[in-house]
Amino acid sequence: MEALQTIFEHRTIRKYKNIPVEKAKLDNILEAAIRTSTTGNMQVYSIIVTQDVERKKELHKIHFSQNMVLEAPVILTFNADFNRFNQWCKQRKAIPGYDNFLSFFTASIDALIAAQNATIAAEAQGLGVCYLGTTTYQAQKLIDFFHLPQSVVPVTTLVIGYPDENPPLVDRLPAEAVVHYEQYDENTTEKINRLYAEKEALEETKQLLETNQLETLAQIFTQNRYPKAMNIDFSKLFLEVINKQGFMNQ
Amino acid sequence: MEALQTIFEHRTIRKYKNIPVEKAKLDNILEAAIRTSTTGNMQVYSIIVTQDVERKKELHKIHFSQNMVLEAPVILTFNADFNRFNQWCKQRKAIPGYDNFLSFFTASIDALIAAQNATIAAEAQGLGVCYLGTTTYQAQKLIDFFHLPQSVVPVTTLVIGYPDENPPLVDRLPAEAVVHYEQYDENTTEKINRLYAEKEALEETKQLLETNQLETLAQIFTQNRYPKAMNIDFSKLFLEVINKQGFMNQ
Repeated sequence: MEALQTIFEHRTIRKYKNIPVEKAKLDNILEAAIRTSTTGNMQVYSIIVTQDVERKKELHKIHFSQNMVLEAPVILTFNADFNRFNQWCKQRKAIPGYDNFLSFFTASIDALIAAQNATIAAEAQGLGVCYLGTTTYQAQKLIDFFHLPQSVVPVTTLVIGYPDENPPLVDRLPAEAVVHYEQYDENTTEKINRLYAEKEALEETKQLLETNQLETLAQIFTQNRYPKAMNIDFSKLFLEVINKQGFMNQ
Repeated sequence: MEALQTIFEHRTIRKYKNIPVEKAKLDNILEAAIRTSTTGNMQVYSIIVTQDVERKKELHKIHFSQNMVLEAPVILTFNADFNRFNQWCKQRKAIPGYDNFLSFFTASIDALIAAQNATIAAEAQGLGVCYLGTTTYQAQKLIDFFHLPQSVVPVTTLVIGYPDENPPLVDRLPAEAVVHYEQYDENTTEKINRLYAEKEALEETKQLLETNQLETLAQIFTQNRYPKAMNIDFSKLFLEVINKQGFMNQ
């Protein structure tokens, strides 16, 4: 089954060829996003397509200068977006009540599952993608860059292009780390040790510890990659953005 | 291309046959979810599989007694979940800093895009799905039902089974409602009128207005389906849940 194969063979692509994405393929990707389920069929999200080389250079800076933003020919920014829906309500004698956190989260769900449909549509057509986690960190800068109006908040970004690398499948924890049957299965000390044993024994992990001069792989996350102070700073910023865009009336 | 076809033919299914989902198919769905990109490969989400008939009856009540929860043989509840990751950190001399809103949102992204991969894997195997928006409304009740520990918040639910209906494709707004090129294209009065013209002219819309005795389709959303007071109530509840589960330290 080709759809399953596409999903099972997913790899994040960080190097791209200097080849444009054909319009027909991009149109399929956008159509795939549009066909995704949305809450009450309200379609409360939007997608901004960036292909202009000069504008990609600006986006590249906003996204912490990650190379794939320069290399990949197409950047899709996905927004939680009640702006259009609210405008429609106002033009139709209806008073919108979507200026609250629940509505922001509802719109985020629409945007995020649409992004994953776009991902599969890209991969099924021989393209590669990478999600940019910097989107929420830099939400205000993206709002300024795209001139996003009230009730619009960027929640994720995909870079898309032809892969210039063929990385192996990334390791995943055993299924029991993620899947629980009927009840939530407690994360006991023994279970945690078992779940992480394989990951911790990888050659890649040993090299990471050597390079970073740290004792455990977990410390690479808590001290280097996603440290508490950084999370709290970006957390404050993101909540401010959600509020400023008009989603915190409760 | 079969993957694209699966995506383009998506319909939400609300009636299910009384036939179980084969274990091999469910395993493919779960494996598809597990292969989805996750932030820093932290896999900070979890999935709870409900198949037990008695437990489905309880879930049915929690999800506002929507029939498909009873009919569909498999219910997957997707959680933003830092519990396992935090436990691992604590066992590995690392101090987790993931008790903030940014981390909750990061974990929600993991959970939501995994849910969409599960959706496509189900549909590619001849199954149908329906997302349950009631998940965020009833997050506290789901936490109680599944005994979810700290740092776990349910964000969406999929019901999965063999379709017992074959509904037509749902209407979507024209692509320009959702897709913007380079800059965000303002939602002017004229643009809104153009975008919604087709939807408002549907026979289905006319019947809805007749049944609900309302003047505009927008009023059906603001007065009947997603009224402001309900949104604000569920907004408060959901923020309380996020806080209580330990994601509001900033």
